[in-house]
Amino acid sequence: MKAEIITVGTELLLGQTLDTNSQLISQYLNEWGVDVTFRQTVGDNKQRLQAAFKLALSRADMVVLSGGLGPTEDDLTKEIVSQVLGISLLRDSSAIEKIRLHFEQGHRKIAENNWQQADYLEGGYPLENKEGLAVGSYWEQKGKIVVLLPGPPKECQSILEGALRSQMLERFKGQKVLYSRYIHLYGIGESEVASRLRDLIHQQSDPTIALYAKPTEVCIRLSTKASSQEEADEIFKSPAQIIQKALSQFIYAEGKSTSLAKKAMKLLQEKDLSLAVAESLTGGLMMGQLTAIPGASIVLKGGVVSYASEVKRDLLGVSKSIIDAYGVVSEQCAREMANHVRKLCRADIGIALTGVAGPSQQEGKAVGTVYIAIALAENTYVLENNFSGNRERIRQHAIHKALFELLHLLQ
Amino acid sequence: MKAEIITVGTELLLGQTLDTNSQLISQYLNEWGVDVTFRQTVGDNKQRLQAAFKLALSRADMVVLSGGLGPTEDDLTKEIVSQVLGISLLRDSSAIEKIRLHFEQGHRKIAENNWQQADYLEGGYPLENKEGLAVGSYWEQKGKIVVLLPGPPKECQSILEGALRSQMLERFKGQKVLYSRYIHLYGIGESEVASRLRDLIHQQSDPTIALYAKPTEVCIRLSTKASSQEEADEIFKSPAQIIQKALSQFIYAEGKSTSLAKKAMKLLQEKDLSLAVAESLTGGLMMGQLTAIPGASIVLKGGVVSYASEVKRDLLGVSKSIIDAYGVVSEQCAREMANHVRKLCRADIGIALTGVAGPSQQEGKAVGTVYIAIALAENTYVLENNFSGNRERIRQHAIHKALFELLHLLQ
Repeated sequence: MKAEIITVGTELLLGQTLDTNSQLISQYLNEWGVDVTFRQTVGDNKQRLQAAFKLALSRADMVVLSGGLGPTEDDLTKEIVSQVLGISLLRDSSAIEKIRLHFEQGHRKIAENNWQQADYLEGGYPLENKEGLAVGSYWEQKGKIVVLLPGPPKECQSILEGALRSQMLERFKGQKVLYSRYIHLYGIGESEVASRLRDLIHQQSDPTIALYAKPTEVCIRLSTKASSQEEADEIFKSPAQIIQKALSQFIYAEGKSTSLAKKAMKLLQEKDLSLAVAESLTGGLMMGQLTAIPGASIVLKGGVVSYASEVKRDLLGVSKSIIDAYGVVSEQCAREMANHVRKLCRADIGIALTGVAGPSQQEGKAVGTVYIAIALAENTYVLENNFSGNRERIRQHAIHKALFELLHLLQ
Repeated sequence: MKAEIITVGTELLLGQTLDTNSQLISQYLNEWGVDVTFRQTVGDNKQRLQAAFKLALSRADMVVLSGGLGPTEDDLTKEIVSQVLGISLLRDSSAIEKIRLHFEQGHRKIAENNWQQADYLEGGYPLENKEGLAVGSYWEQKGKIVVLLPGPPKECQSILEGALRSQMLERFKGQKVLYSRYIHLYGIGESEVASRLRDLIHQQSDPTIALYAKPTEVCIRLSTKASSQEEADEIFKSPAQIIQKALSQFIYAEGKSTSLAKKAMKLLQEKDLSLAVAESLTGGLMMGQLTAIPGASIVLKGGVVSYASEVKRDLLGVSKSIIDAYGVVSEQCAREMANHVRKLCRADIGIALTGVAGPSQQEGKAVGTVYIAIALAENTYVLENNFSGNRERIRQHAIHKALFELLHLLQ
């Protein structure tokens, strides 16, 4: 089945808003086994929206539109789509009720055009919007599917995950759908992964193998169309073993949405270990990423950001003689920082990061020089690193390398 | 002049890659006074790329394509565009030299199809790519402009800012271009701003007024087409005064790319004041945002992340009697944290954040309750806040409110 996506909104053409809905809709359609062949973006303009929709309808089996379902005059999607299809709009009673309640609770008068947010395409179904007032719409006739989704990303995502997903799984029941397995790697570049898996990538047609590179990590996705998770797992088995063999020292986790921070927090929680962090060049960013994960307070006791040398000395208790002899960007300083923060916060593990994020060198050390120390009760490990890239990239590298090393020590 | 953008790449249709180039190209075109009427995205597929380009050429004066300029077999853009236009490709000598050097330095053999990265459209100009090997291309004939840009965002942006910008300014010399003035507000919602500026927004056609809402702030953009910055400044003067009068207490800065963090760091640096931060619910995120700004080390001495109560007591020195009597989510605890972190780090100003980010309540305090304390030498200010939203949003609100209050105290 071929699908085409149309995102609607003048703010997109002006570049005011980044079109994240297109990517999200693409991801869901691909997961449901639907191929996306074109994407279009149009402004809030009758003629252009009509042209875009007609074109999409002429060449795709399924057209998904996002945006323009709101109550204002420039929200034209439902009107144009119903005109082109030659069908009416019906009003969803539960959406009407929701709009009424919403305005009643806000003690506000309901302007007439607010009701149009409850409209869906005749002959189809409304798609419940748990995050907003505008219902989506699913419509299918004579081999064509038309789906209307709201523009606000939270609302669009909520319908994709909820009402549309249910509808699509019901619609394609018994048919093969796409299953994927994700393997996450740290410490190796995309091209090196591609080169080590060259034979596998060239020989294999099912599952397909795709590589995704982020600034500091690579993810391998295996995908296959199957009738069940079990069937898919069987197909993934042999290539996953080959990947495991070729790249074992770089693999840190499996799963669709994971990260080094999530994996580390989970492992610490399982092992009932607590953590304290002393950050210099990363200035709180590592703790910020860890505490973004709900439940972080069980694992992370706290820590110190010691940007200034005095803070390393006064607050962390790093001795003046060490700073004078080796400098703050040194193996010795990292070691002291990790040991002290561990004791100060009464944690099982202390991690310290000190280095040069740039833009200029420090203490004669080059930009990208970073010392990472991990202090356990019995031992303290220190690593010297030379990261490349700009300030932000070096900071991210430092954090991810520290988390990767922590995982190694814990496993 | 009407423009249409085409982004090329199967990874975009699969949702593997977020299409940030479309937004960036839109922003530049709009700044140069060119209206974007449609955007399309196609995969690495000859027929579909051909159809998309022909369609764009039939309805726009200017077509900008991004992606598919690389050396591999699925990089088809130059081939298709030259076919449709019926012209040849020429090879840019300085790009050839760059490719040769690149491979020589890497001690690698040059595969034949690497040279095609030096190609540009006959009758036009190559656009220098400072971030990669594939040159862009600018071509204009019989009232149509065609621009080819590389897909990697860094390379695309580099040409937009560099070679294409020069070409466009030269091309439109003497014509009016778009100038904008940006006013940033904190502490007020988009709809309230719209309501307070209703008359201005309704009456005004030049400059145009646009509102951009981010999760915790609103930006007002005034735009006008003018022949010079001076002419534009004159046009902005009166509406800017009206905005200033209606919203003065919410305005924190002007300028295209600024933020509360940047503004606060700049002001502290100007006043030669140093800062220390104690973070509980924000877990290092505030310091992480501040230290993302180059030169932060001049202002930020450091601070403490005190997630666990013991850390508030042992490291920050908050007395046990205060924690027992009022809890850690309290005005009293925030005050102590700010005072202590200021002294511990020998800073001029101490900021402390303690509160409940969720997902569940704490010490009987509701999710969203946040105490912000700012300690100066002479005085300590404490604010109670009740933020709404999820964990991430509450954390961001807390940081931005603290920075906004700091700006108020300093100004």
